[in-house]
Amino acid sequence: MTANAKIQPAIVGASGYSGFEATKLLLRHPQVKSPLLLAREGGEQGKPFSDLYPQLSGNGTHSLEPFSWELLRAHGVDVLYLATPHEVSRDVAPEAAERGIRVIDLSGAWRLREEQHRAVYGSYDGAAEHFASRAVYGLPELHRARISDAEVVANPGCYATSSILALAPLVMSDLLDLEHGIVCDSKSGVSGAGKQPSARTHFVEVVDNFSAYSVFNHRHVGEIVEQLHLQDWQLTFTPHLLPIPRGILSTVYVRLRTPASEAQVFSTFQQFYRGSAFVRVFPPPRLPQVQFSTYTNYCDIGFALGPDRQRLVVIACLDNLLKGAAGQAVQNMNLMFGFSEQEALI
Amino acid sequence: MTANAKIQPAIVGASGYSGFEATKLLLRHPQVKSPLLLAREGGEQGKPFSDLYPQLSGNGTHSLEPFSWELLRAHGVDVLYLATPHEVSRDVAPEAAERGIRVIDLSGAWRLREEQHRAVYGSYDGAAEHFASRAVYGLPELHRARISDAEVVANPGCYATSSILALAPLVMSDLLDLEHGIVCDSKSGVSGAGKQPSARTHFVEVVDNFSAYSVFNHRHVGEIVEQLHLQDWQLTFTPHLLPIPRGILSTVYVRLRTPASEAQVFSTFQQFYRGSAFVRVFPPPRLPQVQFSTYTNYCDIGFALGPDRQRLVVIACLDNLLKGAAGQAVQNMNLMFGFSEQEALI
Amino acid sequence: MTANAKIQPAIVGASGYSGFEATKLLLRHPQVKSPLLLAREGGEQGKPFSDLYPQLSGNGTHSLEPFSWELLRAHGVDVLYLATPHEVSRDVAPEAAERGIRVIDLSGAWRLREEQHRAVYGSYDGAAEHFASRAVYGLPELHRARISDAEVVANPGCYATSSILALAPLVMSDLLDLEHGIVCDSKSGVSGAGKQPSARTHFVEVVDNFSAYSVFNHRHVGEIVEQLHLQDWQLTFTPHLLPIPRGILSTVYVRLRTPASEAQVFSTFQQFYRGSAFVRVFPPPRLPQVQFSTYTNYCDIGFALGPDRQRLVVIACLDNLLKGAAGQAVQNMNLMFGFSEQEALI
Amino acid sequence: MTANAKIQPAIVGASGYSGFEATKLLLRHPQVKSPLLLAREGGEQGKPFSDLYPQLSGNGTHSLEPFSWELLRAHGVDVLYLATPHEVSRDVAPEAAERGIRVIDLSGAWRLREEQHRAVYGSYDGAAEHFASRAVYGLPELHRARISDAEVVANPGCYATSSILALAPLVMSDLLDLEHGIVCDSKSGVSGAGKQPSARTHFVEVVDNFSAYSVFNHRHVGEIVEQLHLQDWQLTFTPHLLPIPRGILSTVYVRLRTPASEAQVFSTFQQFYRGSAFVRVFPPPRLPQVQFSTYTNYCDIGFALGPDRQRLVVIACLDNLLKGAAGQAVQNMNLMFGFSEQEALI
Repeated sequence: MTANAKIQPAIVGASGYSGFEATKLLLRHPQVKSPLLLAREGGEQGKPFSDLYPQLSGNGTHSLEPFSWELLRAHGVDVLYLATPHEVSRDVAPEAAERGIRVIDLSGAWRLREEQHRAVYGSYDGAAEHFASRAVYGLPELHRARISDAEVVANPGCYATSSILALAPLVMSDLLDLEHGIVCDSKSGVSGAGKQPSARTHFVEVVDNFSAYSVFNHRHVGEIVEQLHLQDWQLTFTPHLLPIPRGILSTVYVRLRTPASEAQVFSTFQQFYRGSAFVRVFPPPRLPQVQFSTYTNYCDIGFALGPDRQRLVVIACLDNLLKGAAGQAVQNMNLMFGFSEQEALI
Repeated sequence: MTANAKIQPAIVGASGYSGFEATKLLLRHPQVKSPLLLAREGGEQGKPFSDLYPQLSGNGTHSLEPFSWELLRAHGVDVLYLATPHEVSRDVAPEAAERGIRVIDLSGAWRLREEQHRAVYGSYDGAAEHFASRAVYGLPELHRARISDAEVVANPGCYATSSILALAPLVMSDLLDLEHGIVCDSKSGVSGAGKQPSARTHFVEVVDNFSAYSVFNHRHVGEIVEQLHLQDWQLTFTPHLLPIPRGILSTVYVRLRTPASEAQVFSTFQQFYRGSAFVRVFPPPRLPQVQFSTYTNYCDIGFALGPDRQRLVVIACLDNLLKGAAGQAVQNMNLMFGFSEQEALI
Repeated sequence: MTANAKIQPAIVGASGYSGFEATKLLLRHPQVKSPLLLAREGGEQGKPFSDLYPQLSGNGTHSLEPFSWELLRAHGVDVLYLATPHEVSRDVAPEAAERGIRVIDLSGAWRLREEQHRAVYGSYDGAAEHFASRAVYGLPELHRARISDAEVVANPGCYATSSILALAPLVMSDLLDLEHGIVCDSKSGVSGAGKQPSARTHFVEVVDNFSAYSVFNHRHVGEIVEQLHLQDWQLTFTPHLLPIPRGILSTVYVRLRTPASEAQVFSTFQQFYRGSAFVRVFPPPRLPQVQFSTYTNYCDIGFALGPDRQRLVVIACLDNLLKGAAGQAVQNMNLMFGFSEQEALI
Repeated sequence: MTANAKIQPAIVGASGYSGFEATKLLLRHPQVKSPLLLAREGGEQGKPFSDLYPQLSGNGTHSLEPFSWELLRAHGVDVLYLATPHEVSRDVAPEAAERGIRVIDLSGAWRLREEQHRAVYGSYDGAAEHFASRAVYGLPELHRARISDAEVVANPGCYATSSILALAPLVMSDLLDLEHGIVCDSKSGVSGAGKQPSARTHFVEVVDNFSAYSVFNHRHVGEIVEQLHLQDWQLTFTPHLLPIPRGILSTVYVRLRTPASEAQVFSTFQQFYRGSAFVRVFPPPRLPQVQFSTYTNYCDIGFALGPDRQRLVVIACLDNLLKGAAGQAVQNMNLMFGFSEQEALI
């Protein structure tokens, strides 16, 4: 590849919401070709992509093609986005790596250490298990250098991204009284539940409504615990369904080991995210709102300190389809291929 | 039945939105017993109704029972609400009538003259065809007396109710230039599309969106044309999907034969609906809004007259689940059994 | 008053959302007359109430009258609902009591012990201060007997109602490790912010959005702390603004002193609320959702117990305008006047 | 100005929704400098723009400066966006033109011929009246060449853009029976009503609601009539308020002079918009939906032909803040300064 050659991306599962967002981002990325759009199976194969997403009419996308390794080779695919169920990603990623195609996997297939993965997602064949250690958890703010070299990037979960970014500076500076435990009360828009129609995503059931679900057993908990080196019991995580199309707000409750000032807390966040253009730390009393980060790749963070100067509430917001999925995936691609980290994302 | 005895209603298809609303209305009706709730088939049979609708927890409803004539007889059912697909209603209603059970059918099975019915809904067996003439179109504002005596009431479509009520006073007073045609631009909330999940009712596809559908071929057109004695080409009807859970607003465009004053138009509506408690005519310049009629059984009507005093825009609003379905059904039941027309509806 | 005489209610501040809901409830209450609707001042005086709320067209309400004691006397008002700013309630309630009119105050004027009140709402004249001890906190589930005899009932805040009802059974059974603290993450629909237009309630700023506010300093915290006999530092309360018109969901995080079973926790709630028809306790794994309680006077409660059997998440939902305001006010009136507690509320 | 020099834009009234959108577009336009953001008066002057729109934190905008000609000169402003009330635009635009600064005015100040303007907006001083003929109506699809040379571009109204684009190909091909009249039933999201809080834009009044307003007297009617050379009585235009933040859908009802085929109608639209990249014509039976065009600068057009092949329903959708305001403004700027018409807009 010469300096000026564009790379060829492909997206498997392009018809879902994350695939659609990834497609839009890649279409305006100056260093990549128009993405090859692939479907694993079913009625969508062969359909013009703009039939599924008329938003893209006139934007030069092609049809959804059936996935095949031959097709990837014929197009000289350099990087493969997997917007597929985790079982599919377990199959496809190892073979892609073997064929020299770098992978950005948006499922939960490679986010956890193997033992934890088996506990959360069930057991898999030995081949995939051996492969797991080759994946890098794709949160650039924590693992920027390792992502650059990764064969396979495990793009983080949307809830996990907001929770980890809200907590990492505090945990890694050892400011928290972890014996006291952490409460993470998270709220997500409906696109986080995917495009498949269900009673849960029926407009009439969601609008004018709000609900908690998967209390004490959401799959993203494992990522947060593992990335922050916590014990399971130290994190209480409750996801809720917001009647909005996109966006996450996590309200995180922690106790500082010792009383601190607002300035100290602010400085802890600022220093940690120096050099991370996609995390914006808001000085108190300003707090992030979902609307400030939707349709962007930012994760916004703000906080309020209690009158005892020990109880701390951190608020983190992001767009679950961008910084929580496709945007972060492109950010990871930018790192993997030596592009500017912000390319196509600002 | 003595004067004070309560009647026993049953609802087939109680699990849908119209069935749920009918259940709530009947539960607070002083002259009826707790409704027997029936399911035709499927996984919902045997389930406590409050599992489907936790809103009703603690309100004394029972389980969804499988439909059977034996069960109806055992409970001494007096009136059967059919919130079923039109094919099912075609089967059930004639037999119910034969067994002496009065029927209020919320489907399209009996709304049209037989010839028109076949054109819109397809063909049916001879038995049902012969039965069709025994059904009365259940719009009390037009057919109050006939409804009182009806064996089978064909509860009108939600769009049709709003359109007919907006037009009937003008058409029946022969005020309209019908050669000019009528435009009815209608907008409905999502519950009108039913409870079944689909791509069309997925929250993410509906929210922040608005769209027209079934232009020139919606099934309710036949009802409007037939009830108002129009020719097909005289009515252009366009339904749209509103990102709200419930409510319809129809904007109706007509031309008066001769110029008129606001007072004349207002008076035409007022006189026509004198004695019809559930139609509220708003004096100009006040116009109905969806919110004014949702959660009520009212159809609200207002209008604006053009500077030429001939172009007239009529606005009609109602709640598609109440005046457009379950509320009107209970209104019809009140007429059929000699109760106050407003019982349980105010 | 004879056994059959209806009482005469009046509502000051009827034009706000709580006043509107109270009006609707009183209009269908068989033991009260049509409420006298009063405005303190401003352009709304003299307006037909159905101009402000066309929803009520044809329902027999009158005009908004200017408030005066003479008018109250002329109508023989028995009970006065104050849907007024707390400063106004401080003025009006003592004089009403002196005139023998019982008061249900929906503001924060009389909810707190005087010392706490001064800290939260500022200082007031001595007269009002002496009066404070005569008000009863109007949460029937805690103070049913005292409310029956009260001259002045301080109707609880909407957030406070949900939080106290979620916690009271646990706190009063001494099951909680209060040293560990309580986190109450609450979310409310926009009607809780009142009818006055503001940047905060502008549709475009609320829709597709979600945000926290008043972290560590919301006025309702004092009520919760006081009613549950907590220390300030034991409660961390964060309100959020939901993009829905009405409804509250509070997610409450506590730690049990000792491990317990789901059955024990469920039984604690059930026993505590035996005899309280408006609290519905959901057996796990069912959890309340906002939609289950809106447009009702119920507070729904559910919970999830952690794998350690000590971490407990309690979810409480209610309609902020009904159980959180006007519905609870009518419930209180029912107790004060010896009516069935559920009258007009089911 | 050399070929490579960037131009300097300024936005007066940057704090409104259109100003905000224009700012975002200009920030990513490669041929313009960061826009100078100006406020005419009031509390917003001097505030960092990212205080008003935290969405833009970290994006390099500056503070809102008080408007002055000196400031414009000091910055060498080349083009002035006026997102101001029409009265202000009447004052500012002539002086800007005199000073050699080109103007794109987003208000209604210069859209109409002077006589019509006076009728709709009231009377103005003679100076402005003489200036009116120098403004060009900024709808590129109709006036591309004249816009390129314009001193002052009158950016069209959002409703007008959708209606004119839906009708122009039919009117200008003389296909319509104009004696029959045109009905334009338009629906707009709430941002079209501006950022100023009001009872009309209060979340609780808009959500779950839908309403018509300004029937027979909306200001945009004049633009449509004038641009299409219609008589007033030939157009019946009804705007409605949709409970969505942004987006317009116009349903337009016309009668063709003589029966036509779908292919003929489609071809009429396609040929008319050949060379107009921002109008997408959908082949039947596909119809535009609001979501397909929001967050883009496209106007999408589709249609359905009646069984009589004469009644025709045209649907046009666009984003009222982009193709209906700021996007079209930037499109106009691109034409005025010889940039690619699509720059910053795809």
